[in-house]
Amino acid sequence: MQLMKALVLTRFGDVDGFELQEVPKQEPKPHQVLVQIHATSVNAVDYQTRRGDYKHLVKLPAILGVDISGVVEAVGESVKQFKVGDAVYYSPQLFGDFGSYAEYHVADEQIVAKKPTNLSHTEAACFPLAAGTAWDCLVTRGQLQVGESVLIHAGAGGVGSFAIQLAKAMGAYVFTTCRALNHNLVKKLGADYVIDYIGEDYVEVIQRFTNGKGVDLVLDTVGGDTIGRSLNVIRPYGRLVSIVDIATPQSLLEAWGKNLTVHFVFTPQYRAKLDALKYLIERNQLRPVIDSVMPLNQVAQAHQRLEQGGTAGKVVLQVLGCLS
Amino acid sequence: MQLMKALVLTRFGDVDGFELQEVPKQEPKPHQVLVQIHATSVNAVDYQTRRGDYKHLVKLPAILGVDISGVVEAVGESVKQFKVGDAVYYSPQLFGDFGSYAEYHVADEQIVAKKPTNLSHTEAACFPLAAGTAWDCLVTRGQLQVGESVLIHAGAGGVGSFAIQLAKAMGAYVFTTCRALNHNLVKKLGADYVIDYIGEDYVEVIQRFTNGKGVDLVLDTVGGDTIGRSLNVIRPYGRLVSIVDIATPQSLLEAWGKNLTVHFVFTPQYRAKLDALKYLIERNQLRPVIDSVMPLNQVAQAHQRLEQGGTAGKVVLQVLGCLS
Repeated sequence: MQLMKALVLTRFGDVDGFELQEVPKQEPKPHQVLVQIHATSVNAVDYQTRRGDYKHLVKLPAILGVDISGVVEAVGESVKQFKVGDAVYYSPQLFGDFGSYAEYHVADEQIVAKKPTNLSHTEAACFPLAAGTAWDCLVTRGQLQVGESVLIHAGAGGVGSFAIQLAKAMGAYVFTTCRALNHNLVKKLGADYVIDYIGEDYVEVIQRFTNGKGVDLVLDTVGGDTIGRSLNVIRPYGRLVSIVDIATPQSLLEAWGKNLTVHFVFTPQYRAKLDALKYLIERNQLRPVIDSVMPLNQVAQAHQRLEQGGTAGKVVLQVLGCLS
Repeated sequence: MQLMKALVLTRFGDVDGFELQEVPKQEPKPHQVLVQIHATSVNAVDYQTRRGDYKHLVKLPAILGVDISGVVEAVGESVKQFKVGDAVYYSPQLFGDFGSYAEYHVADEQIVAKKPTNLSHTEAACFPLAAGTAWDCLVTRGQLQVGESVLIHAGAGGVGSFAIQLAKAMGAYVFTTCRALNHNLVKKLGADYVIDYIGEDYVEVIQRFTNGKGVDLVLDTVGGDTIGRSLNVIRPYGRLVSIVDIATPQSLLEAWGKNLTVHFVFTPQYRAKLDALKYLIERNQLRPVIDSVMPLNQVAQAHQRLEQGGTAGKVVLQVLGCLS
């Protein structure tokens, strides 16, 4: 049995729970590919899992990490779409047994896609989970249409920064909220109207700007009271898409009178959306927003950086050569 | 100015607030029809409005009532679809200035439809609001598909009894909840699986019967904790449709992990759905379920009957000849 190095989470809690260990290197089954990981990136679900928010779903010790850009090192006998040497990017299934904080990963070929040719592995590792989530929210579930308007909460965040670009590529008018220091960033990404997260009230701003008509769609990447308050800025028969699961009961009273629809999203993994994103990336309609790049052995600092909030774009972790 | 008799609500509160009065008879504007009302029926929104739940939307004195079956007595100069003598049925706009507890009603022709030819006015007055709501929930918003399964809460109620029949006409498998004494009724309407509202737990029953898979769609006509609990019996990517607006915050935690969609419905009025219902009624795929028939001057008793719960189908009020 071959071994590989991985940063293994040994206990739930603070960032000291990661340990560099040697663990068995998986063999690809007939429909699987074995990928040497070049880069990964940190998502909110990583630190939420680390601190124990999903302890009912995750068995320790566990290898976290849900973004991969890398190169195919071996393929199962039934694999048709990939060959050894292909550069690929994808998101491992959430809460699965093996994540991306490791030298290698084995995945069903149906969730793997060719890496965009115009991106480095560091850049490509920003996309799978966050941009794939934005895709499911705006395309698959929210069905944003050309000419519609959308409010994207936290536009400088991991999902938000892709959602702005995607909404723009879809021909929508984009409102977004962020901190003042990120206003230029979200403008560059394509936001039409930027609302100061701290100093302004988005309900008041959008009511005023749309003459009380509201927007067609709201994307909630924030949680808290965002669902309840956002219902006030959606037009009749409009939609809200939420990706932040919260146990707190939500106030929905505004939803009935306006015939609203709320979509709850826990993004699934499949190749088609990664292929669609690749197309947009290669046309330069989607680009990575990188907050910082660190080696994987600094995962503790990377978690802290994302967890404390205020990042602009993705925190990327370089894997290849960073686990010795 | 001509006068007409109406049962006017003079104060919010108990059923003593209705007074028989003579009020101005409206003239139809160019796109309106004047209808002599033969029958109306009582809906939950009637007693909710009477007791003051919507006092921010309703100005007193007011004429309540949101179902009409009657005969066109005059038409405005631009009316194209109707002529004097046509039998029609429709639902006046909710919270409008004039309702159906009166001898006459004036309406825009776009919300009026020809009455099904195989129904009496008493029967036809059961349909517009309740069956129209069922239509919006299952067809327009819920998009129930042939072969899908649906849980209809309170299947013996006004909306529920039409929803069962409509779901059946659409080719769906119908679960419903009701009191034991109405089990035979909902079976006759087409329910495939009846759950005792009192003695059984619908979450447990449906989990067991579907081997944990859940139903495709849930229709909540009940309120309370029905949204939160029903999320447990919907399949991944399934839908819930709710028509009961409630101020109490709702627990939604189950919705994210299963990628659910929730549609909130406040039913709009338009002719197309009444025409569609007429087609189904005339093919005997939809029939009225009448709990009781009373003259309009017994509106107090009618409200009490519906408000106390446990009715089977609609409480109809005869109007023609009942206001002298």
